[in-house]
Amino acid sequence: MLDFRFDNKTEIIFGKNTENQVGTETRKYGKKVLLHYGGGSIKKIGLYDRIIASLKDAHVDYVELGGVKPNPRLSLVQEGIDLCKKHHIDFILAVGGGSVIDSAKAIAMGVLYDGDVWDFFSGKGQIEAALPIGVVLTIPAAGSETSAGTVITNEEGWYKRPTGSLLLRPKFAIMNPEITYTLPAYQTSCGSVDIMAHVMERYFTNTQHVDLTDRLSEATLKTMIHNVPKVLRQPEDYHARAEIMWASTVAHNDLLGTGRQSDWASHDIEHEISGIYDIAHGAGLAIVFPAWMKYCLKHNPNKLVQFAVRVWDVDYLPEDHEGVALEGIRRFEAFLKSIDMPIRLSDADIPEDRIEEMATKAVGDGTMGSYVPLNKEAIIDILQLAK
Amino acid sequence: MLDFRFDNKTEIIFGKNTENQVGTETRKYGKKVLLHYGGGSIKKIGLYDRIIASLKDAHVDYVELGGVKPNPRLSLVQEGIDLCKKHHIDFILAVGGGSVIDSAKAIAMGVLYDGDVWDFFSGKGQIEAALPIGVVLTIPAAGSETSAGTVITNEEGWYKRPTGSLLLRPKFAIMNPEITYTLPAYQTSCGSVDIMAHVMERYFTNTQHVDLTDRLSEATLKTMIHNVPKVLRQPEDYHARAEIMWASTVAHNDLLGTGRQSDWASHDIEHEISGIYDIAHGAGLAIVFPAWMKYCLKHNPNKLVQFAVRVWDVDYLPEDHEGVALEGIRRFEAFLKSIDMPIRLSDADIPEDRIEEMATKAVGDGTMGSYVPLNKEAIIDILQLAK
Repeated sequence: MLDFRFDNKTEIIFGKNTENQVGTETRKYGKKVLLHYGGGSIKKIGLYDRIIASLKDAHVDYVELGGVKPNPRLSLVQEGIDLCKKHHIDFILAVGGGSVIDSAKAIAMGVLYDGDVWDFFSGKGQIEAALPIGVVLTIPAAGSETSAGTVITNEEGWYKRPTGSLLLRPKFAIMNPEITYTLPAYQTSCGSVDIMAHVMERYFTNTQHVDLTDRLSEATLKTMIHNVPKVLRQPEDYHARAEIMWASTVAHNDLLGTGRQSDWASHDIEHEISGIYDIAHGAGLAIVFPAWMKYCLKHNPNKLVQFAVRVWDVDYLPEDHEGVALEGIRRFEAFLKSIDMPIRLSDADIPEDRIEEMATKAVGDGTMGSYVPLNKEAIIDILQLAK
Repeated sequence: MLDFRFDNKTEIIFGKNTENQVGTETRKYGKKVLLHYGGGSIKKIGLYDRIIASLKDAHVDYVELGGVKPNPRLSLVQEGIDLCKKHHIDFILAVGGGSVIDSAKAIAMGVLYDGDVWDFFSGKGQIEAALPIGVVLTIPAAGSETSAGTVITNEEGWYKRPTGSLLLRPKFAIMNPEITYTLPAYQTSCGSVDIMAHVMERYFTNTQHVDLTDRLSEATLKTMIHNVPKVLRQPEDYHARAEIMWASTVAHNDLLGTGRQSDWASHDIEHEISGIYDIAHGAGLAIVFPAWMKYCLKHNPNKLVQFAVRVWDVDYLPEDHEGVALEGIRRFEAFLKSIDMPIRLSDADIPEDRIEEMATKAVGDGTMGSYVPLNKEAIIDILQLAK
């Protein structure tokens, strides 16, 4: 186990009707907020009206900025920054999923920075201040509701880049599983793959002696495997929705990453796919992760064997580690297919002609990942395995 | 799943030599601290000297109060309160295990209260303020390093009573597994039982649909089952010590209690035993918990079957739930014996003549616990099963 620091300062407010507490929670931190959201879905389900009512009840003033898209765009972030400066906003309330929260985080740090906010993503700037943020979560997926990170896409060149700081961690996250009843099945599945991927990026490590976090990770994966099919069959299954929503936070608040090196190569490879093709992040991960596993199997099978035995209940065979691991990957792929996810580039109508370009954008002449460090050729191999 | 609020604001600073950061961490909150500890062990292992050096390096002034005993006493708490008032202490640094931390918490709230600090334990007072607290943990057991609770024993009548407030949660907890190398085997085992008990008090619930927290709980229990025997064989196994130390926090920071009713009857029954006989809390729990399970089996077997199958790998048999559960309890008892814990009152030389007195003190004419609500007769039955 490696040395680590850990805390989880975001207050989770979880359960039915909790969105009605947003006004009083917000009022603890700000008087004039930017209400940031995506498309029209929060209006259609009545969530928007409940939030406005709660803010008004608590005498919180607000300015609105909707229109966040999946793979949130730098241009809207810049618009938000201008809006905050103009209206002297002191708090940002993100109502949505990871894209809205990530966009809110980028705005929060951009408002208190004199330069171009993209500096933080390109490595030119250091985050030294940010407006406080609150969240009403509508899509369990990204884990951004308690994380310190954000991922933004720059339309000039379609670069999708992450950055992070503890200053970006939301003050509170309101999580009502009922709000997720109306999520389309496809979005539920994509979000679920993202949640599982957050666990797996931490699970696949060369750090030895990580027994507790391994077992907690396996517990979280099994919870997803058990509950995602339930909500696809019965979208208004409150308890299964609640399990998925709570798992989304546990998967990414970094409890599961304590004391161990994480990988993140699959996420980085996926960012290049969804940066170019605008496929949902979770669907991209469903394509990349099995291919990444098949590639890693040749170089570092150990954890893949454990994954197969403990998560997918494959019988352990000491004489056939490769066979055990492959059966684990096969069951993972079967699960992904059963929740209607693409598992090959072709399933998502992604052509093969820009594989080398994606690999180059992802890693250049360097390497990424740690479970098996990957150079450009390795990433090309992985994307070939994903054809 | 029930509605809940959750955060984990204590900053965990985990790993080798982390005690050397205590000065700089303390300096963030206070200038003049009460250095609170137990017996001479922290001096014998050199920890005391390293802490003093770190405080001095960070220009933190300190007043000392040692002498905390297991089942920490109200009289020392009152002495600490007087000392803090006299020296205008603004921060309490607890160096020790749960007893020292609990004593520090009681002092922290007593300093800012005009009445008798016992009021908070007897239900007469409401905790409205407390000095900030920091921890250097030496015994993984109580989980008090991130919890909001404290348990103090009033020597007048030997009442052992809990109280709690989010105001009591430590600001930071420094956790270096190396410090636990010199823990006597008995203390290691007692602490480990306490950790497992913290999981089980939450695990045994009637709240339905708690899949994630069930699985996380089982993961934590399995981690303990796997690692405790290791450190008893090899006390300087860093990684096994680290697993136990990290599990002690995960078991009791209430992640595992989110969205579910907890029980705590076994803890409350044990408090009466250790309140009278001054047996180590963990040893008392090793006696009470199996007896509690045997009693509950007659009234509410469901979770005991799950415990047997998932934690102790007992084969599930639909036609013999009682047999499955009993085999789980038997394996739990065998594990406790294998780590040299008493599992009967007689193993700890506790006579049977005060069973009714303990039951009366524990519950009076009311009930305790929720998995199976227990009245005085039920507690007598449980203590009879523990003979």
